[in-house]
Formats: sequence, C-alpha cells, structure tokens
Amino acid sequence: MSEQQSTLDIQKEHQQYVEDLGNFKRTHNCSELNKNMLGQEVCLMGWVQGRRNLGKLIFVDLRDRNGLTQIVFSPDENAKAHENAHILRLEYVIAIKGIVRPRPDGMPNKNLKTGEIEVYVTEWKLLNTSKTPPFVLEDDTDASDTLRFEYRYLDLRRPVMAKNLKIRHQITMAVRNYLDESGFLDIETPLLTRSTPEGARDFLVPSRISSGHFYALPQSPQLFKQLLMIGGSDRYYQIARCFRDEDLRADRQPEFTQVDIEMSFVNEEDIMSMTEGLIKKVFKETLDYDVVTPFPRLSYDKAMLEYGVDKPDLRFELKLKDVTEILKNSESKVFAGAELIKAMRIPDGASLSRKEIDAFTELAKTYGALGLAWIKVKEDEWQSPLAKFISPEEKTALEKALDLKAGDLIFFQAGAKDMVNTALGNLRIQVAKHFKLIPDNSFNLLWVTEFPLFEYDPDSKRYIACHHPFTAPVQADFEKLGVSPDQIKARAYDLVLNGTEVGGGSIRNHNAEAQRKMFAALGFDSEEAEKQFGFLLEALELGAPPHGGIAFGLDRLTMLLTQSESIRDVIAFPKTQKATCLMTKAPGEVSEKQLKELSLKLSENTNEKKS
Amino acid sequence: MSEQQSTLDIQKEHQQYVEDLGNFKRTHNCSELNKNMLGQEVCLMGWVQGRRNLGKLIFVDLRDRNGLTQIVFSPDENAKAHENAHILRLEYVIAIKGIVRPRPDGMPNKNLKTGEIEVYVTEWKLLNTSKTPPFVLEDDTDASDTLRFEYRYLDLRRPVMAKNLKIRHQITMAVRNYLDESGFLDIETPLLTRSTPEGARDFLVPSRISSGHFYALPQSPQLFKQLLMIGGSDRYYQIARCFRDEDLRADRQPEFTQVDIEMSFVNEEDIMSMTEGLIKKVFKETLDYDVVTPFPRLSYDKAMLEYGVDKPDLRFELKLKDVTEILKNSESKVFAGAELIKAMRIPDGASLSRKEIDAFTELAKTYGALGLAWIKVKEDEWQSPLAKFISPEEKTALEKALDLKAGDLIFFQAGAKDMVNTALGNLRIQVAKHFKLIPDNSFNLLWVTEFPLFEYDPDSKRYIACHHPFTAPVQADFEKLGVSPDQIKARAYDLVLNGTEVGGGSIRNHNAEAQRKMFAALGFDSEEAEKQFGFLLEALELGAPPHGGIAFGLDRLTMLLTQSESIRDVIAFPKTQKATCLMTKAPGEVSEKQLKELSLKLSENTNEKKS
Repeated sequence: MSEQQSTLDIQKEHQQYVEDLGNFKRTHNCSELNKNMLGQEVCLMGWVQGRRNLGKLIFVDLRDRNGLTQIVFSPDENAKAHENAHILRLEYVIAIKGIVRPRPDGMPNKNLKTGEIEVYVTEWKLLNTSKTPPFVLEDDTDASDTLRFEYRYLDLRRPVMAKNLKIRHQITMAVRNYLDESGFLDIETPLLTRSTPEGARDFLVPSRISSGHFYALPQSPQLFKQLLMIGGSDRYYQIARCFRDEDLRADRQPEFTQVDIEMSFVNEEDIMSMTEGLIKKVFKETLDYDVVTPFPRLSYDKAMLEYGVDKPDLRFELKLKDVTEILKNSESKVFAGAELIKAMRIPDGASLSRKEIDAFTELAKTYGALGLAWIKVKEDEWQSPLAKFISPEEKTALEKALDLKAGDLIFFQAGAKDMVNTALGNLRIQVAKHFKLIPDNSFNLLWVTEFPLFEYDPDSKRYIACHHPFTAPVQADFEKLGVSPDQIKARAYDLVLNGTEVGGGSIRNHNAEAQRKMFAALGFDSEEAEKQFGFLLEALELGAPPHGGIAFGLDRLTMLLTQSESIRDVIAFPKTQKATCLMTKAPGEVSEKQLKELSLKLSENTNEKKS
Repeated sequence: MSEQQSTLDIQKEHQQYVEDLGNFKRTHNCSELNKNMLGQEVCLMGWVQGRRNLGKLIFVDLRDRNGLTQIVFSPDENAKAHENAHILRLEYVIAIKGIVRPRPDGMPNKNLKTGEIEVYVTEWKLLNTSKTPPFVLEDDTDASDTLRFEYRYLDLRRPVMAKNLKIRHQITMAVRNYLDESGFLDIETPLLTRSTPEGARDFLVPSRISSGHFYALPQSPQLFKQLLMIGGSDRYYQIARCFRDEDLRADRQPEFTQVDIEMSFVNEEDIMSMTEGLIKKVFKETLDYDVVTPFPRLSYDKAMLEYGVDKPDLRFELKLKDVTEILKNSESKVFAGAELIKAMRIPDGASLSRKEIDAFTELAKTYGALGLAWIKVKEDEWQSPLAKFISPEEKTALEKALDLKAGDLIFFQAGAKDMVNTALGNLRIQVAKHFKLIPDNSFNLLWVTEFPLFEYDPDSKRYIACHHPFTAPVQADFEKLGVSPDQIKARAYDLVLNGTEVGGGSIRNHNAEAQRKMFAALGFDSEEAEKQFGFLLEALELGAPPHGGIAFGLDRLTMLLTQSESIRDVIAFPKTQKATCLMTKAPGEVSEKQLKELSLKLSENTNEKKS
C-alpha cells in the first residue's frame, strides 16, 4: 500500500463516520510525563506539531494546551501503527497509546518539561485530519493580525495564546477566591438596561415587545451595584461585561470586562486596603511575584506637577519641574509669557545626538508641542540653540532648581498647561525607554488620589464628572457644589500599574441631597434629573448606606501581567478596530422579518454609507 | 428639645452633609455576636428593623445581610445617645458602638443566632434617614410583585432574598472551584455576536460603524465553545449570560445565565461523570446534602412511555402504562380507535371525591385533553361512568397490566400520542401533590439519554434539531442521516432534577462531513450552510478534536436549591413578563440623534403599537 493510498483510505474512513474514541482513554496531558514514569503505559491525545522520519523511526511532537511530548513510531513496536503513521501531517488530531521510555543518552531537550522522555507508540487512532494551516502555529508566527483573527481557533493553539488564556483564568480565580474569603457575593446585574445620557455612547438593543423602545447594554454595572448596596448586599463583586460604542483605539474593545466591586459602610481606606490584598494575591498566585503593600500614594496635583500625567510610571525617576517663575521673562520667544514652563532633567543625557534629539522633537509634536527646547549641560558651557538667550541669573536658578550636573540633558516645554504636561509626560516614558531606565519584570503599583470632582468640557461648554456623576465630593468641599465646581476634590482614587490605569473607584453619594446637587452642577435641571435618575434618587431616600467601590479593567490587567502587547492577545475572540469579528463576520445583515418584528427600518443613507 | 424637633435637626444636618463614617469602624456583622463575647466593645452598622420603647429603655433590631442584633439605648449608658434614639424610624441606617451584654434571664430569643446577647449602645451615628418603605421588609411581605420589582432594592433587604443571593453565590463558587480543580479554564466569549437562523429569536444590536448591519446577543456560547475546543483549550467553562427574545412564560427571562462547559477528547461517559461530581459538590457545599452518584439513567423512549414526559420527577412512582392493545377495540367511544391509550394507577386513590376528580378533569383539559376517564376500583365492583362499556376480558387484562388492588383509582387518556403523554404526564405531578406523595426536602437527579436527533416541526414542515444542529448522531445511526431522520438517536443527554430539566448537552460533530449532512437534513442547501456556518465547517477541517459538553440553567438550579417559586426570586434584578424593568423603566425611549447614528428609523406603525 503506497503512502498516498493509505492516507486516502484512512482519511476517507474518518470523513465518513463520526469517529468515537473507542477504547482510547486519555491518561495524561502532553506536559506531564517525566522520567519517574518510565515503563508506564500511557494514552495521550493531541495535535501533530511536527513529524520527522529518522532512519526507520518516525518522530512526532504531540501538542496539547499544556505542552509537547515526543512520540515515536517504531516498526519494532507495532508494524501496522508505524506504517500508518506516514499519513500524519501538521495539525492532524490523534490518540496514542504507548510506553514511556528515556530519551537516548545526551538527547534530553532541556527546553521541554517532558524533554527527558519519549513515548513509543503501541497503538494509535486518527481522530481527525487537517488541511494545511494558513500560518505557522508557534509563538513566533508569520501570521498577520487579519489572518490570526480570521482563524482565531488556530491562533489559540499557539502556546503563547494558550498561556495567556490560562493566566487570565488564574487571575479571575485568584480574584474570586480572595473576594469570596472576604465576604463578597458574586451577584449578576442585567445586561439589558436603560440608556442614560452621561458617559460614552451606548450600544442599543431594540425591544420587540415594547416597540419603539430600546434597551442599552451597560457601560458598567455602576447604578446596579449601588442599588445592591442600598439593597443591603453589603459586599458585592462581579466580573462584568461592559460595552462602549466608541471609535476604537488600539487598546479598546467594544465589549470589555471589569472586576467590579462595591462595599457598604466603608471609607476610602477600607477599599484601598481591600484592593491591596487583592492585587497582592493576584500577583502571588499568577506570577509568584511579591508586591509590597501598602502601595504608595500620590495626589493628582502632585502627579500632574511631577510627571505631567495622572497615571505616572514610577519604575523610573525623571521628574518634571515647574520652572515658569525662572523663565517666564526669558529673552527667548520659546519661554516668554508662557502659561507654564516645565523642565525634565535627564541625568547623563548629554550624550544624545542631534538626530536623536530631533526624533524626540517629532514625538513631542505628536502631543501638540510646537517643538522641543533642550540644553546639554557640559563641564564648561551649556550647549543649546537657546544658550545665548539664557541669562546668568536664569542659569544659576535652573542649576539650583534642577540640581544640574555636567553631562545632563534638559528637555523643556512651554505653553498651555495641558499641552506642556501631555508632551513632557509622554516624552518622559520614551526617554526612559531610550536610556533603558525601566527595569525588566518589575511592577510598580501606585494610588493616585484627590482627583478633581469636575472637569470643564470645552466641547459641551459645561462641567462634566471626572470620574462619574455618582462620586462624592470630599466633605470639606461640599459647600462649593454649585459655587466653584473646579475647586472641589472628589473622594476618588485610581490604581496605576507601570504607568497604566488598571483600576479606579470612589466613595459614592449616599445622600439624596448631595446627589441632586451633583446633578445640578452637571447641568441637569431637576425635572431631567428625576426623569433619568429618579429611581436612584428615590432609592437614596429609602435607607441608603454609605458605600463606595472600585473597578479594574481585567483585559488590561491581564495584558500587563502576561506582558502582552495588546489586550487582543488576552481576549479569546476579540474584535478589530472596526468592531468586527473576522472569524464569524459579525456584525451581519439580518432579515426584513427581523427588522419588521422590531418595528425598525434602515434609513435610506445606509447603503451609501456601506463601503 | 421635643422629639420632633430633634428629628428635624438631626435629619437636616445629615441631609446637608455627605456623611462620613467618622471614627466608627465596623467590628462585626449583625449575626456574629454571642455569649462568648460578653463585655466586648463592638461597632455594628445596619438598618433599623424595628424600635420598641420599654420603660426608659429603647430597643432596636439592627439588621444587615447576615441577620439581626438587638441593640439597647439606655439613659444610664449615654444620656444624649438615648435621647437622640427617639428619632429612629424603620430603615434608618445607623452605626453604633456598644458593649455586648447577656439578655436578662429567660429572655433569649432562640430563633435568632444572636438571641443570647444584646448590645448596650455607648455612642451612635445616623448614617442615613429613610422615608417609610412602601411595604413590609420581612420574609412574609404584603407586597405585590409589581411593588417588589419597582422597589427591588427594598425587596432585596428581605432575609429570604438575601439568603437566595448568598446561595446563588455559593453555587457559583462551588462550580468554579470544582471546575478549576478539574483543569477547566474560565474563558469569556463575545456577547456581540452574529445572528444565526436556527433556534429562538435573537436580540439584535445595530452596529454604528457598519451601518445596516447588526450584532446578535448570543442564545448560548455554543459555537464559541466548540471553536475553543478546536483552538485546543481542552476544558472550558463559563458562567455565561444568554439571551432569547421570546414571549415570556412565567419561568423565563429575556436574559438568563448558564453554566456552560465543553471538553475535548471525551465521550458521553466522561461528561456525565464529571457532571455528577460537580452536582454532588454543589449540593454538599450549599445545602450540606449528599447526593448519590452515579445518577440513574432513563432512555428518552422509556421516560415517555412510563412518565409521558422527557423530564420525569422520580421522587414518586405513579407510572403510566400503555393499554392501547387492551382498550383499542373498546365499546367506549372514549377509547375506540385511539392512537394511544394510557392509564395511570393511583394506589388508594379511590377516596377521591367526584368534585376532586372534576378538578383534575379541568386540569387535563388545559393540556389539550377532551376529558378524563377514570375508574375507582372497589372491593366488589368498578365505579366509573365507563364501567358498563368495559368487557370482562378488558377488565381482567387491565387488572393484570396495572396490578390493580381494591381502593385504587385509574386515570386514562386516549387520543393523539402527544396529547395523551402531555396530559397524563402533567396530571401525574398534580396527583402526586394532591396525595402528598412528594417527600419534603428530597432531590431526585436523573439522566435522560438516547434522545432523537430530529423532531418534525409541523409549522415549518421540516425536521428540526431536538437539541441543536451541532449534536452528533450515535455512530450506528450515521447512515440514516438524510434517509430516515426520525429514526436517528442523538448523542445527547439531559439532567433532570425533581422533574425539571436543569442541564443538557451532547457530543458534537467534530467531523465536517457529518456536520454538512446534518445541515442538509435540516433543510439548508450547501450554499446557505456555507454562508451561515462556513467558519465552523472550515474550522472542522483544520484539526477539530472530538468534543462535547453540557450546560446548566443556573437560575433554575438555584431556584430548585433554594426552594423558590420562581427564577425571579434568585435573580437580583429580574424583568417582568413583558421584559421590562419596573425599577429603571428599561427599555426606554432614545434620542433621534442615537437612532440617526445607527442609520435607523422607527417604522410608522410604532406609535400605534404602543399602548
């Protein structure tokens, strides 16, 4: 029987019948066997990762979720089994029985958990064939993102993806166990909810029974978790799916998952210390990494002052310094009269070439800067296009303020406050990367506190809630509600990991009057507030306990813990930036009947907009 | 200061300021204190369940999620605290500090975990006031369902509801721990998916970016979990939200939750034994109830024959018997020529009055029966309107077939097969309730197996999948696909608990050819099958392992374990039968802007249909 013939026969047989496992029953997974099991008869099942013929032996790497085991087909073991093994191709699915043997002397594979053994096949069964996969199913793949998403089920067989899903599972188990032990109840809240005017754009779900009416998918379970506190649930959590219909940036998904937590009868300290225990456990159980608690805290104002952002990465120093007072009367047009002037001293940065500085300048421009002023501090002089505009007094003041040493480089930004902070804050990270200031495998956790309650939104020309409209002001600022909104601090806190916000929360208004004032400050008249949030205001008048909470972005947390580049690498079936699923082709067209049942019509411009 | 005056003052103070907990820090919950803690200073927080003035003392039952503690305000302890306590009303939220004291001799409340102690208040703080609740917040409430749903947050304070949510949490934790220990990964699948033509009606979500296109909310994660198996995830589970836009019966919700499980390289036995371990653990950890494994099994055919339904309640006997052969030539018009005649012997049922039999007759009619034939077996004669039509031979044959004894009652149904089974199958349960044949607090678990693969749908005049289109036929019946669909058995199994289907699953087609034949048998031409399920068919050709799974209705399982009457009692925020949320008023109207962004218009008949 030729090899080709036998392939066809066996494939045909297996295409015709729904293949049962027969008398094969898996005894181990593909990463469990070791030299303590020599001589045992085992049964493994998995995918053919590769086949090599060496002399009269056929070697196959058998792969499952857990790892690889080398299996060997030998004519001395079972001639028929060896003969049939010639049909094996990449990604064929097989079950084997065999004997665990040591690898020949000098042949162990130290990169493999099962590298000291191999399994000599005594019997095997073809469970399924496979067409040739469209890309290489290894960590280092040749596939484009498009191909990976279209064949996501193949992509998920890559060990790195299997590992990511496993770590995600471990994180959620650690979260659940910690919260369960701490008296939290996992309570599900509705996904068919009501659209509210605050926040991002809602995904809508037309109602068939109440025609002309719509559910909204929740942006978070915020109101429901507060209502649970009012309902006496005391300690709630949920690993909750949330939805935002926004134009997607690289690191956003239309649906995402948050670890959502709420507690009654607590203040900020209670929530922060509960959270620290939770994060400590997650790191310990998934990475065996010890984080030190309590986490350091930084006020929002100080974070903005020293790092230009509200989520600074403190794995490295590189603080910003406000030098407005020193340079505001400078002869240089770059500085003169600027609202804000900040400097970042880069120790031993003077080695940067002109070309490298130009690259940083381009980067600064992407954050709205006009350019990038710089000074190289040399032993004898300052090298800078601006040097001649800096007076001896200014120079002395800068030396003192920035604690300058020979060999330093200074980057400046001057102009509008937001631009200066954004540009230098982001430049800071790129500078750290360039100078390799960020230690490998280190995790820096940090609380940012004392956020403003409101921020002015120039688009809608009104104040909007920095956190959300249910956040309580600090008690001392309560009188300022409706008077001087920009001076009110919120009882809010963010958890920052390596410069990424991974969680945030607040103490909520549990007092109806406070919540009414909050709505008024946000520009709701009382009728509108009642219409949109009447049920909440009424609930606050029926015995609402003090409460607060926090929520973590599970996708982002998992991305950071697995050191993945994108949240799409830690979500089983992610969507593209156009919010489509390349595998199932969602969203799709639906029938006229379906639309009619929902009393909906497509507007006439629909077809035009299609492209 | 009058009581009224002080109330106003204190309320006013607390309405004006966002009240902090100050120096109060909770030390215990309201069901923890006992006589081992006498003399301890404690801090409790909770709701005022009731206030009684007895002499100069004021007694308050303080309630939280966990239970009640009696607290005592005494002028001897703190005169001001005692004075202020007169303002306390139902559902006020307070924090107290106090000393644990024994209750006076002879006064312990044995119904209360904290019944041996009371707490003398040394200091307290009003955390919030409450308007008078619209209904009584006790297990035995006076509230209508409408009122309960509108004020769900008050309803949830009732101890029975708090207990239900806690048991639901315990069930999910037991499930998660068991599956985690068994190597399952909790993997999230998308909620924004694609509408498919099989199954129930989908909820649709219009896409803004791809205008004219729609996502569908999943009816189950079926295809995704199969794709995860093809992706090598091996053992998957998810406590997954599912959606069906159907007209709601009492025990249905538009969104519901299932424990969704899938395994690779397994057969039916593997899934059933995994499931038995899971269910055993759930009962043990939530109710401390020992279920015996393995569960008994009953084929679908035998279940229909003996119980008239595919989910029989085996907590009691009352089997049905096919007596068609005995009675088909009867002189009675009731029996003559009927497709099927079945009898149910009710031991010692002859005591039933005529009026009671009439009530059962009315019940039978609600299941499509024309009436209810009956015979009372007396020592000397058979009492029945039909007695005179029954020949001596028929009588003897019935006596033998039904093993009749004096005092028995027989109910008969004759006619079309489905009606006979449905009517007697449902009557069986009501008869058992009437005669109190169902033991209290007992749980009967049962597998029903060997389901048909297809059933004929008279509406669409075609065969539809009994389970779903991805279920594999038993191997021996594979050749019948496309030939004699009604003779094919499926590799499917249901788990039945006390007569309710709580779970079901199957081994899936992992072979593309088998799946194509299945689609053809369901009436898809190959083009349509490719269009709708092309990604699945392609995945099956790229190394799909044998796999199968099961899913449990978490709401229903929790309802049965908590002995609740409705799944709405085990869902935090359920919807009404019209799929509305009475609390938040979802679904609601949305703005023109929102519709325009989605390229949608309401059809003209929308307003008419509103009522």
